Amino acid sequence: MSLDVTAGEALIQNNLEKFLLVLSVSLTVATLSRTVSWMRQIPYTLLLVIVGVFLAFEDVRLVNLSPELILEIFLPPLLFEAGWNLHWKHLKQDLIPVTLFAIVGVMISIFGMGWLLATFTSIPLPVCLLVGASLSATDPVSVIALFRELGVGERLTVLMEGESLFNDGVAVVAFGLLVGLATGSQEFSLQATISNFSVFVGVGVGVGSAIGFGISYLTQRFDLPLVEQSLTLVAAYGTYVITENLGGSGVIAVVTTGVILGNFGSRIGMNPRTRLLVTEFWGFIAFFVNSIVFLLIGDRVQFDSLQESLVPIAIAIGGLLLTRAIGIFGLGGFSNWVAKSDIKLPELTVLWWGGLRGSVSIALALSVPVMLPEREDVIGIVFGVVLFTLLVQGLTTKSLLQNLSLLDENSRKQEYTEVVARRAALERVLQHLQQQQVRSDVPPEFYNYQTSLIQGELNQLQHQLQHLQNEDPDLKDYASQLLKDELLAIEADTYAEFVKSGQLNQELAPFLQGQS
Amino acid sequence: MSLDVTAGEALIQNNLEKFLLVLSVSLTVATLSRTVSWMRQIPYTLLLVIVGVFLAFEDVRLVNLSPELILEIFLPPLLFEAGWNLHWKHLKQDLIPVTLFAIVGVMISIFGMGWLLATFTSIPLPVCLLVGASLSATDPVSVIALFRELGVGERLTVLMEGESLFNDGVAVVAFGLLVGLATGSQEFSLQATISNFSVFVGVGVGVGSAIGFGISYLTQRFDLPLVEQSLTLVAAYGTYVITENLGGSGVIAVVTTGVILGNFGSRIGMNPRTRLLVTEFWGFIAFFVNSIVFLLIGDRVQFDSLQESLVPIAIAIGGLLLTRAIGIFGLGGFSNWVAKSDIKLPELTVLWWGGLRGSVSIALALSVPVMLPEREDVIGIVFGVVLFTLLVQGLTTKSLLQNLSLLDENSRKQEYTEVVARRAALERVLQHLQQQQVRSDVPPEFYNYQTSLIQGELNQLQHQLQHLQNEDPDLKDYASQLLKDELLAIEADTYAEFVKSGQLNQELAPFLQGQS
Repeated sequence: MSLDVTAGEALIQNNLEKFLLVLSVSLTVATLSRTVSWMRQIPYTLLLVIVGVFLAFEDVRLVNLSPELILEIFLPPLLFEAGWNLHWKHLKQDLIPVTLFAIVGVMISIFGMGWLLATFTSIPLPVCLLVGASLSATDPVSVIALFRELGVGERLTVLMEGESLFNDGVAVVAFGLLVGLATGSQEFSLQATISNFSVFVGVGVGVGSAIGFGISYLTQRFDLPLVEQSLTLVAAYGTYVITENLGGSGVIAVVTTGVILGNFGSRIGMNPRTRLLVTEFWGFIAFFVNSIVFLLIGDRVQFDSLQESLVPIAIAIGGLLLTRAIGIFGLGGFSNWVAKSDIKLPELTVLWWGGLRGSVSIALALSVPVMLPEREDVIGIVFGVVLFTLLVQGLTTKSLLQNLSLLDENSRKQEYTEVVARRAALERVLQHLQQQQVRSDVPPEFYNYQTSLIQGELNQLQHQLQHLQNEDPDLKDYASQLLKDELLAIEADTYAEFVKSGQLNQELAPFLQGQS
Repeated sequence: MSLDVTAGEALIQNNLEKFLLVLSVSLTVATLSRTVSWMRQIPYTLLLVIVGVFLAFEDVRLVNLSPELILEIFLPPLLFEAGWNLHWKHLKQDLIPVTLFAIVGVMISIFGMGWLLATFTSIPLPVCLLVGASLSATDPVSVIALFRELGVGERLTVLMEGESLFNDGVAVVAFGLLVGLATGSQEFSLQATISNFSVFVGVGVGVGSAIGFGISYLTQRFDLPLVEQSLTLVAAYGTYVITENLGGSGVIAVVTTGVILGNFGSRIGMNPRTRLLVTEFWGFIAFFVNSIVFLLIGDRVQFDSLQESLVPIAIAIGGLLLTRAIGIFGLGGFSNWVAKSDIKLPELTVLWWGGLRGSVSIALALSVPVMLPEREDVIGIVFGVVLFTLLVQGLTTKSLLQNLSLLDENSRKQEYTEVVARRAALERVLQHLQQQQVRSDVPPEFYNYQTSLIQGELNQLQHQLQHLQNEDPDLKDYASQLLKDELLAIEADTYAEFVKSGQLNQELAPFLQGQS
């Protein structure tokens, strides 16, 4: 045992250095992607995949941890963050289509892809179904990273994130069952399948809810920002580990905890400043972990096995796009008809094309038992399809959104906020200008010209705001809310400055927070 | 190798669960320590040590990683955070006493303790010197955690933190040399010692400066908050790993990087909001890591070896207090005489009694080679002394500060600053509110209500300030000092902005600094 511990520690030490290398590469890519103009067209995460593939091509392999462990380390924080930022209020409105996509859509995809592959290749049906199961769940991490970077509207994001966050449970159960069938260790039984699925999802939702509500009510009893922030981190990993040990879906459990803490716990148990801090903290964690995950996805490509599987990969891609079309347009239409969900055709098109596959698919493929002779084929096909979805679908989704003019349709609140931001910036400039006017070293005409320029723009902005408010009276409340948030932020930032300059020991609870 | 990887991964997996357990215990302790009134008297970190010792007594061992690895994981972020928040402006003023304490003080301690132990016990002199070297460096983590929680004044904190951050280099070099002597593998040579020490410290300062200034100038070229935040994390671990691999002092290197990024890089390369976010992020990391480290220190106690070494422990404690008295009072007096540093007797007393030992001492003791027959004795003695400094000295430092009335004056100033901070925040809010009043997009009743609310609170704060000044006329000077610091900060920040925007090459020396 002592030897194993040493080997393990060498592994950790070795990997610490490798992770530092991975991060350095990722941060370089991140910096280039924002500063070099032609790279700005490519979403940052996809650029990382490309760099990773390039490194793999040069046979530079960055980290040699098993995919299960990578998932255990990186998946919980990403899922928790997604849940934390998911608006339950919006998800509730689209619960029916999301549930249909996540359950029925995945099944259509598994059997459709499996059948197509078995028909057009010589791979046996059970193995084809395994490939189908690996590839049927859209990847929350990839989808969320892409949609956020592109700035897709609220509803599309909720539909896509909701589906991605909840369909893993279905795919993982189906996969486990199909592994049993493919290796001949288990016979199919509808009853057992349904019962397995219920336990898997039920334990996930149960543990997630218990931890989520438990922490929500706990944090209501005290106001300790650092403890509350730490608790969210412990909750993310703890929920995942406990649920997996109990035989439930860790993915579903973490998402549940995240949704509860983000939508309920953070409101009843945290002061606004803590909520903001925690949200910013998780935003950073998501950026940080994504920087690692997408580079590693690219870096794990095995070119040999890709080349050998070109034909089945092409068939699988066709099957994936076809079955997803059936699932999304069919179920979407059904939901529009039954539940009046009113998802428009352009939105359905984006849901169809934007359903990327990622780390979850890869992890499932890599967990195919070594005893199965077709294991390498499964891995090769899955990697090929994942790369296609990330690089081809991922890179073209932006154009698709533009062509469907879904990107232009910014929510009115967003437009309002932009005008407010512009007004705030110009007011600050004007104020600065007026303070300077007493100086004699700049010609007064310059001041007058600039002042009238800005004043004119400000008047126009004011008209624009008025116009927006007339169009949508709800924006009046929104304006008051914006201003109140602003005031609270100024107060809280001032305390933070006092702390940073060493004059105060700890931040004060904002006075304005208690006032309605 | 494949087997080793599996063993390593099992270790990581196993330890993830254990760390979650550790964190749950720590957060419970943190919450209790702020909510249960009698526990509020005990600094949180020391409460964690006590709980850890209790768990060890019940033979609950939480984590079985080697101390080297624990140091490699936990030390860099703690040291970086300490460096980031260290005010170079203040440290510069006390550079002479800090350097004297960190170099000469450590030597006095090593030889004094070694000689006392060798005289009064039967342990051979080289081993006694090893004990002395392990225990001679005050522990930055413990000291900083304690002083911050107690709210000790700025100057005492700088003196203590400065010493603790820089004396490790001396102790580690001395320890390495003494291990060679004790195991008979090396002969003493003054020349070799000095050259070793120079390389060790020089490489540390060199690598730390290179990385610190490199990142400072790099981040000046772009404004990407998440990348800059990630870079500080990469910098903390990267500096440590690179320097240790080059044979330098990782501790000194990380501190150097932290001081440079916190005092220079964050001013020229980050916008104020990023700087604040990064500071808050590191504050959280420090809390989080401290929650783990102090519990583990307590949990690692071996009661058997403590019991066997009771007599040498008592002698070592005596030696430690005696040699530190000579070092602090002697060198402090010398510095007061030569450099006019004017450190008062009560302050020296706190520096003497508050010099806690912690994780660095334990790590050094545990790294004594197994071939040395007295290894267990060394570990037992060092653990005993560390526990004494943490539990006895740590728990009584607050009373000492109160008796020397170093905390009272400070807490009144603190109270005054809190009111001032609140007034500044609300004045800023009010000003913002009044600028907005011309806008027509928010109902006027909202403005009037908020304005009267804030105005009322401001009047009350003004009364409170008057009352505090009447009670203690010294606060008038303090108020002037606060305003002067504020003006100086505005001036310095303005130059930093000019540098950041590329209009100035280097920061100007503040005009107000020269004025009394």
